[in-house]
Amino acid sequence: MTHPALAGAPVYLDYNATTPVDPEALEAALPYLTAHFGNPSSGHAYARAPRAALDHARRQVAELLGAEPAEVIFTGGGSEADALAVRGAALAVRAGDPGRRRVVTPATEHPAVLRSCDGLRAEGFIVTPLPVDGHGRVDPGDLRAAVREGDTALVSVAYGNSETGTIQPIAELAAVARQSGALFHTDAAQAVVKVAVDVAALGVDLLTVVGHKMYAPKGVGALYVRAGTPLRPVIPGGGQERGLRAGTENVAFAAALGQAAETARRELPGSAVRLAALRDLLQAELEARLPGRVRLNGHPDERLPAR
Amino acid sequence: MTHPALAGAPVYLDYNATTPVDPEALEAALPYLTAHFGNPSSGHAYARAPRAALDHARRQVAELLGAEPAEVIFTGGGSEADALAVRGAALAVRAGDPGRRRVVTPATEHPAVLRSCDGLRAEGFIVTPLPVDGHGRVDPGDLRAAVREGDTALVSVAYGNSETGTIQPIAELAAVARQSGALFHTDAAQAVVKVAVDVAALGVDLLTVVGHKMYAPKGVGALYVRAGTPLRPVIPGGGQERGLRAGTENVAFAAALGQAAETARRELPGSAVRLAALRDLLQAELEARLPGRVRLNGHPDERLPAR
Repeated sequence: MTHPALAGAPVYLDYNATTPVDPEALEAALPYLTAHFGNPSSGHAYARAPRAALDHARRQVAELLGAEPAEVIFTGGGSEADALAVRGAALAVRAGDPGRRRVVTPATEHPAVLRSCDGLRAEGFIVTPLPVDGHGRVDPGDLRAAVREGDTALVSVAYGNSETGTIQPIAELAAVARQSGALFHTDAAQAVVKVAVDVAALGVDLLTVVGHKMYAPKGVGALYVRAGTPLRPVIPGGGQERGLRAGTENVAFAAALGQAAETARRELPGSAVRLAALRDLLQAELEARLPGRVRLNGHPDERLPAR
Repeated sequence: MTHPALAGAPVYLDYNATTPVDPEALEAALPYLTAHFGNPSSGHAYARAPRAALDHARRQVAELLGAEPAEVIFTGGGSEADALAVRGAALAVRAGDPGRRRVVTPATEHPAVLRSCDGLRAEGFIVTPLPVDGHGRVDPGDLRAAVREGDTALVSVAYGNSETGTIQPIAELAAVARQSGALFHTDAAQAVVKVAVDVAALGVDLLTVVGHKMYAPKGVGALYVRAGTPLRPVIPGGGQERGLRAGTENVAFAAALGQAAETARRELPGSAVRLAALRDLLQAELEARLPGRVRLNGHPDERLPAR
């Protein structure tokens, strides 16, 4: 068979910007856009199927992350999950301990994290930028220095950088943060489904999951919230999602995200190996055909397999 | 034909909690969950169709409301739109005029508005509850008294109450608010598609639209933001939605909301008449069969046609 690129058909390579929707994920969503349209919060029979679907999806996402279902909060996407994690945790920690009014994050974070930090600065927080090396990596020693005063509420470092794919030493960084009494958040938008992500192994308190980076639709995400983590909603109102995210639940897309999580769990670690091999092939071919004109952004080894 | 209720089949009457998805709205969404999955912010050809769909949907929603397309901000639902309106406007007004630190709203508002007001109280705002009469109506004279000091940033009154359907005198209330220099928000979740809602006739600055109350899916909404209205995002990050709502756009559900808006525009005012007739029939039959045992919550005349 002729490779589509050689046949002149376009080859989509921007999976880090967004993925197509897995047909299985779409199929999981459709019943909740048709027959089972009920509001899961209603007190009548029409609520039953949507409520069960939401529970099922929560279990599926939890299993991918090694979390408990009650630790998964569905959101309208990754930026919302980041806002909930950063703003929600920083405000909740400071409310319990007014001395903790520092947030520590690298300047290379996604705008969803950086702009949430700006908002906190306007409310009296100190935002301390973490330095990164030439490959974009954070040195745990630098984090240790930044949180030394014991006044840090939250540390937020993305699992894999959204531009370069550079992977951070999350388990080490989380340990440093938690030792100082701060909470630790990681935006794993780019990592989930590309590598195995286990919240217990990482030791994080908060972890962002984004549907449209993992073959679920745009408009859904999730935040892992370790049991007992103090958090305030950014969308307050009704009691949905344990009071942490108000609004009638997007049952259809939660079901799609759940199915995408289940598929990812089934296909990992094979998918990581396959992606890395494709990435290495592309890089080798580019370097062979354009000698001296190819430059890699990001870490040569410690980067996500799709970069 | 035997009526389904008489044939023993259930009749769904809880359209005010949530509606089924209009098949035409679902059809409008599907291309963006399949072939046209691109990220509308990407700089390549895959962005073209999703970006065009988003523009089209924005025009459709704007036309239903009598607004300009640039005045429509897509959100992940009604609670988010309310949070953006209430928190976003109050903070933005106070930033420009530190003396304006009052928010005025009836105690009968939806929790999405009330809990956002609680959040503002924690940040130094005064929240003044507006009285309502026995039918849940606000008297414009009471609003005049509440905003008299000229220190009000925002007034928020739902178009139709989410429990009783009582309609407020929005145009009058908006005029009073704006005369005092305050912004005016109305949550029209329950009103859009049941009655004609025109932002110019109402004179409001901000108006909440909720997808799943108008035959679009759960997980999408919109906020009308009058051109020039100061507003801060509650989900900050990338520059999507004119910087007022970060996150990769839910193109599919925006398209569904757009289609639902177009259908609503086509079917109004006929649908309002039809719903009111059905409502009156139900009420008359209940009163005839259960004499003295039926009590109407809400205003006898000034209420939405589906109550």
